[in-house]
Amino acid sequence: MSEVFDLSSVDAYLRDLQDRLCAAFERADHRARFREDLWEREGGGGGRSRILTGGELFEKAGVNYSHVWGDALPAAATAQRPQLAGRSYHAAGVSLVLHPQNPYVPIMHANVRVLVAERAGADVAWWFGGGMDLTPCYGFVEDAAAWHANARAACEPFGADVYPRFKKWCDEYFFLPHRGETRGVGGLFFDDLNEWGFERCFAFQRSIGDSVLTGYLPIAERRRATPWGERERSFQLYRRGRYVEFNLLYDRGTRFGLQSGGRTESILMSLPPLARWEYDWLPEPGSAEETLLREFLRPRDWL
Amino acid sequence: MSEVFDLSSVDAYLRDLQDRLCAAFERADHRARFREDLWEREGGGGGRSRILTGGELFEKAGVNYSHVWGDALPAAATAQRPQLAGRSYHAAGVSLVLHPQNPYVPIMHANVRVLVAERAGADVAWWFGGGMDLTPCYGFVEDAAAWHANARAACEPFGADVYPRFKKWCDEYFFLPHRGETRGVGGLFFDDLNEWGFERCFAFQRSIGDSVLTGYLPIAERRRATPWGERERSFQLYRRGRYVEFNLLYDRGTRFGLQSGGRTESILMSLPPLARWEYDWLPEPGSAEETLLREFLRPRDWL
Repeated sequence: MSEVFDLSSVDAYLRDLQDRLCAAFERADHRARFREDLWEREGGGGGRSRILTGGELFEKAGVNYSHVWGDALPAAATAQRPQLAGRSYHAAGVSLVLHPQNPYVPIMHANVRVLVAERAGADVAWWFGGGMDLTPCYGFVEDAAAWHANARAACEPFGADVYPRFKKWCDEYFFLPHRGETRGVGGLFFDDLNEWGFERCFAFQRSIGDSVLTGYLPIAERRRATPWGERERSFQLYRRGRYVEFNLLYDRGTRFGLQSGGRTESILMSLPPLARWEYDWLPEPGSAEETLLREFLRPRDWL
Repeated sequence: MSEVFDLSSVDAYLRDLQDRLCAAFERADHRARFREDLWEREGGGGGRSRILTGGELFEKAGVNYSHVWGDALPAAATAQRPQLAGRSYHAAGVSLVLHPQNPYVPIMHANVRVLVAERAGADVAWWFGGGMDLTPCYGFVEDAAAWHANARAACEPFGADVYPRFKKWCDEYFFLPHRGETRGVGGLFFDDLNEWGFERCFAFQRSIGDSVLTGYLPIAERRRATPWGERERSFQLYRRGRYVEFNLLYDRGTRFGLQSGGRTESILMSLPPLARWEYDWLPEPGSAEETLLREFLRPRDWL
């Protein structure tokens, strides 16, 4: 690899991205502000956790930045890459989850991250990962199509095959086998990305990070004034239960973070403020709730 | 092993135990009744799931019986027992979780189960497992001591070392490393039990199963009329979030059941009807909520 891997530029981008996202979400919320917690990790590094609660648009929003390092890559990171075991590493990223108040406004998650593994006398190994996915409680084809059009536009400069490839990966990753459902209408997911060289991979990460707002805010604005009542609230809490199930049962970032001694409160900011379970609940045939399950929670070409 | 393993007697006990537990919980509830769902498993066997919701004492109570069999032990069951890989098996058990309405009445979980693995020309391999554990939102030394005294009495006929051994195992099993907390005040947990021969092991299982009611009902009766308000409800929902975290992140039964294609709604009956997460919440120093964390959610000799 002839290019130099420039971690400080990536880190600066991530910090700036966190600032821009928080500023935009505060503006969109109209009421609540982010609280910031700075934390340090014993083994090296730390983070800035930012959480907003009780807003007008967001019941809870978390936008976390972290940059940690250590002497030896954790086992979970080298399971697929045994040649990297024992290397020192840096891991940096921004991760966000939005739990809106109005059940017609979808949940959104996005993440951009980089991992670098070094050893004296060997090339630096690095890869980018991330993505963004949308989880509506009430499905609108218009929203899913707009979300995916925005995702495709972010991928387009990097090749026509990029969107379909990372869209499919997203459908496969955010899947709950015990429910036979996708988490939501998907978006993008990628990992192990280094095939384009540093400059182009970093540009791709910026393109994804920068497109979070253009993808989400128009949808949130379109739905935030939709009237809702007890029925919609009840279904929203029920669907949030599925979100909890995915994150605790399957999400590799959550499980890895907790098992490797990450900051619990920052990792679990992804969990909803309130969630509900109801034994063997089934939606009324033909209802909007049933339409979500039947038409939105399976892999589908939205464009 | 000279004794014959008599699965039909164990199965009959388990069915009867489910009946007795449900009848007692309905009597104690004063209002709601169990709904029963019979289900069959494609690979062999099935179960009787019984759920009560919206009661006076119980916001949700689940008492499940299942007996499944198959041609080859699932991988999770043979990880510790490679010599049993590929054997045909039977697995039967009763599992229950009670989520009370009143925050002063503790959550309770209990389970008794048996696994049998057979192969032509080889001895039958079998083992019992189970236990019972109590998870208060508000801690009372009197309740924890009574709960453990009942557990010790159930173990006593089987040796003086049985209660301390299975009490310790319970503390270790129901532990949330990412929170540095036990799930509750513990009780008993055991697995792989066959060292006493069939008759004695089965008698021990009956002793545990039969002591669920004598352990729980007096505590529930003592606390059910305690007045509570928004503060207690809020803390109850928060503590239920921890229950969700344990069951989805760590509980082997839950994870194994879901991953091996068990009946999702029966397995996840253990989840609370409503749960809450609040970023970096801390109890007031000196409050009852802080006392729970400081004095009740760590391994402790209650007797």
